[in-house]
Amino acid sequence: MTTTIPHWLSKQAEIAPDQTAVELTDGSYLTFKELQEKSQSYAKKLGTLGVVKGDHVGILSENSVPMMITIHALSYIGAVGVLLNVRLTASELNYQLNDADVSVLLVSASQQQRANELKVKMVVELTEIENNPESSVALQEEIQLDSLFTIMYTSGTTGFPKGVMHTYGNHWWSAIGSALNLGLHKEDKWLAALPLFHVSGFSILMRSAIYGMPVFLLEKFDVKTVQTAIFQKGVTILSVVTVMLQQLLEELGEKVYPEHFRCMLLGGGPAPQSLLQTTKGKGIPVFQSFGMTETASQIVTLSARDALEKVGSAGKALPPAQLRISRPDKDGIGEIWVKGPMVTNGYFKKEDATNKAMQEGWLATGDLGYVDEEGFLYVVERRTDLIISGGENIYPSEIESVLSAFTGVREVGVTGQVDPIWGSKPVAFLVVDDFITVDMIEKYAQEKLAAYKVPAAFHFVTSLPRNASNKLQRNKLLDLLN
Amino acid sequence: MTTTIPHWLSKQAEIAPDQTAVELTDGSYLTFKELQEKSQSYAKKLGTLGVVKGDHVGILSENSVPMMITIHALSYIGAVGVLLNVRLTASELNYQLNDADVSVLLVSASQQQRANELKVKMVVELTEIENNPESSVALQEEIQLDSLFTIMYTSGTTGFPKGVMHTYGNHWWSAIGSALNLGLHKEDKWLAALPLFHVSGFSILMRSAIYGMPVFLLEKFDVKTVQTAIFQKGVTILSVVTVMLQQLLEELGEKVYPEHFRCMLLGGGPAPQSLLQTTKGKGIPVFQSFGMTETASQIVTLSARDALEKVGSAGKALPPAQLRISRPDKDGIGEIWVKGPMVTNGYFKKEDATNKAMQEGWLATGDLGYVDEEGFLYVVERRTDLIISGGENIYPSEIESVLSAFTGVREVGVTGQVDPIWGSKPVAFLVVDDFITVDMIEKYAQEKLAAYKVPAAFHFVTSLPRNASNKLQRNKLLDLLN
Repeated sequence: MTTTIPHWLSKQAEIAPDQTAVELTDGSYLTFKELQEKSQSYAKKLGTLGVVKGDHVGILSENSVPMMITIHALSYIGAVGVLLNVRLTASELNYQLNDADVSVLLVSASQQQRANELKVKMVVELTEIENNPESSVALQEEIQLDSLFTIMYTSGTTGFPKGVMHTYGNHWWSAIGSALNLGLHKEDKWLAALPLFHVSGFSILMRSAIYGMPVFLLEKFDVKTVQTAIFQKGVTILSVVTVMLQQLLEELGEKVYPEHFRCMLLGGGPAPQSLLQTTKGKGIPVFQSFGMTETASQIVTLSARDALEKVGSAGKALPPAQLRISRPDKDGIGEIWVKGPMVTNGYFKKEDATNKAMQEGWLATGDLGYVDEEGFLYVVERRTDLIISGGENIYPSEIESVLSAFTGVREVGVTGQVDPIWGSKPVAFLVVDDFITVDMIEKYAQEKLAAYKVPAAFHFVTSLPRNASNKLQRNKLLDLLN
Repeated sequence: MTTTIPHWLSKQAEIAPDQTAVELTDGSYLTFKELQEKSQSYAKKLGTLGVVKGDHVGILSENSVPMMITIHALSYIGAVGVLLNVRLTASELNYQLNDADVSVLLVSASQQQRANELKVKMVVELTEIENNPESSVALQEEIQLDSLFTIMYTSGTTGFPKGVMHTYGNHWWSAIGSALNLGLHKEDKWLAALPLFHVSGFSILMRSAIYGMPVFLLEKFDVKTVQTAIFQKGVTILSVVTVMLQQLLEELGEKVYPEHFRCMLLGGGPAPQSLLQTTKGKGIPVFQSFGMTETASQIVTLSARDALEKVGSAGKALPPAQLRISRPDKDGIGEIWVKGPMVTNGYFKKEDATNKAMQEGWLATGDLGYVDEEGFLYVVERRTDLIISGGENIYPSEIESVLSAFTGVREVGVTGQVDPIWGSKPVAFLVVDDFITVDMIEKYAQEKLAAYKVPAAFHFVTSLPRNASNKLQRNKLLDLLN
């Protein structure tokens, strides 16, 4: 039986109309009542543009209030939001637009200039929605938790980006799981500097609407702006990846965070012990977490209380979630499986990939890890060969698949190399025909791949390390440099 | 699609094994790990006694730790708990035991003496469960939210008690709705002085397991014990009915509640304005609420912030719930309808009553009220003729139906009369044959009705006020005394 709840934004507008829903660095803000009215108005205006219930609507935008309004507007129409990474190239975007059956694409002003490269029926600039008359489209007053709300792409080990489907329920349960773990205070204000097109940023929007909590929205991460928000604007919770935390600590110097700051939610891979030691005594309660697009954000979280005792651990599964290690080896290491109502039902139109990932009701994450005797998860290796660079997931197989399509490239292997700023950077190893130059390959890669995916180095080698069954051994690629 | 979550108590035992789950006045306590182990052990021992998944198991007990353990034990077996009011007479209990298909009845020591009057296959004293060997019954590791967990009786206007069915999901959503409204602090400790066999007390147990929060358990309400718990034992939240709040205020005198005390959740009818004025400046944030067994406790709650501005209001529907006034009259007054995932799916084996109460997905509460321009609910009249006496619901029709079965009684009308201590008390008006005396009727009533339902007075009259269609006008009964 599907569960029905009132539309969460309308509910907050009813309960706490004057509560701040979103606040910006310039001090401007929208209340929940204003956000509801704007979102409903956008919904009616999108109706005029032809958007109807069930449509798949692409959103390609940096963080902004119009983007936030548009996301809620889609929920009032009952349309599905396809959240697109602004850092992707036109060809990467076209793959996703086509795969996700996107009919209308909503873009920020800065993205509009490349709209003509994008293959989609209609492109509308976000702030232009405002200029349309309101249609009489029927707005959703309730939310069916089983209904599809968003699609976000992730590549995984196959090299082909797959659209992770999230129902309203996935987002709801993720928000509730987080609240049960972190608590819920009426003074809470969550800073969103992570992109809203990733689930790590998007989930903050959801928590805002579900808790009735203000979100402090940044277009992008900026150390000084974030510090000001924490010290002077009452921000109590911040979601970061390791590189951001490092920058914040450097800027912080001898200062200590104010007492109202109660949670630094750290995602995107385990933090180095030295970093955690530095947070000690600085009023920075770090909550390490493990999650992925498929789990609608964090699903395993380490409380600040245990942070230093369990360095390197991602913690325990959130209250509505379960965790287990599949087929552990003699050291207890095996594939991390998770289960819970925040976990996706699968990939859009990818039945095989879905069946492979979802086993007996559990999501096989592809990541390896173990659980200690007290039940804490340690992630030993993120999804085979996954490179996490400044919080962005990079899949070697995706880069290899693009580079190998270039005439003259015979073999390609990509792996991550330690980077002092971004944590890791992709580097490529290629077996090529004589006429190929690094410049040619680099230029081609820049055309085809988002900047953060373009290898930091292209090494020409005579052969790639392969195992007995001729499978590429990415973990041995860096040995070629010695 | 049914939602599956890990068993909530096992989850807390995993996340916070050493956290206190239940604390008693003598300072003794059980951690979540201990409560889980005890509950699982009880489940296996109940298995030895023949209790299996799907069984309906009666619980007849005053608040106690063994009662609490037993409730969780039933959830590990997958059995259904039928929560029985210890104040009921044997004949009232037999009606419910039979109606709810109870096979095994678990009783407290003080209830055991009347066990031979109860018509049920097996009666076991709660603390005797311990003495049995453990069976190898398979314990539930997960909870299906759609599954039936408890049955609690309510009479309603029909005079026949009806078993309200609660799924695990009803209890879960009630707890989550409360947390979204009241917030969730890691220092929270909720005092349960209301009986666990009523949903008002039972829901505190659920919140404890779902939040990982200690419950401070009292066998029954006692002013001094409650004050000590608030002042010295760190209790932060207390659920009360009006009469309890009055007693607490009297005892409090000039003192002020400590700062950690953050919520006085007040149910069982609106509080008098004078009472609310007295709480002002005493550190008592009163949250008035409206709810019933069918809504798994509060479904509409008035925040402390609005308490004095909106005196007499029950507040707004909790985040996952909706509220509307059905067929309002010219003053906006109509029947209060509510909807949400905490609302029961219906009455056990009472399809007609269920269909009558559940309309278009909404629960027709039978109570009258209106919603002001800011969305606050005002309850004008509880379920037609409902008498609320010290937090217990008393239905005139039920008493009338019992009294009219006495030979010599021709007509009966029951209504509530204001009582300085209990808020209201039932009084009966009877048309009887000459040979009947008040003593005869009173003795009979004491045999058949729980003490709190026995009318405080029996008035013999020559006729009852009736309308044109001969329907009893209970609201005119008291006029007969003038």
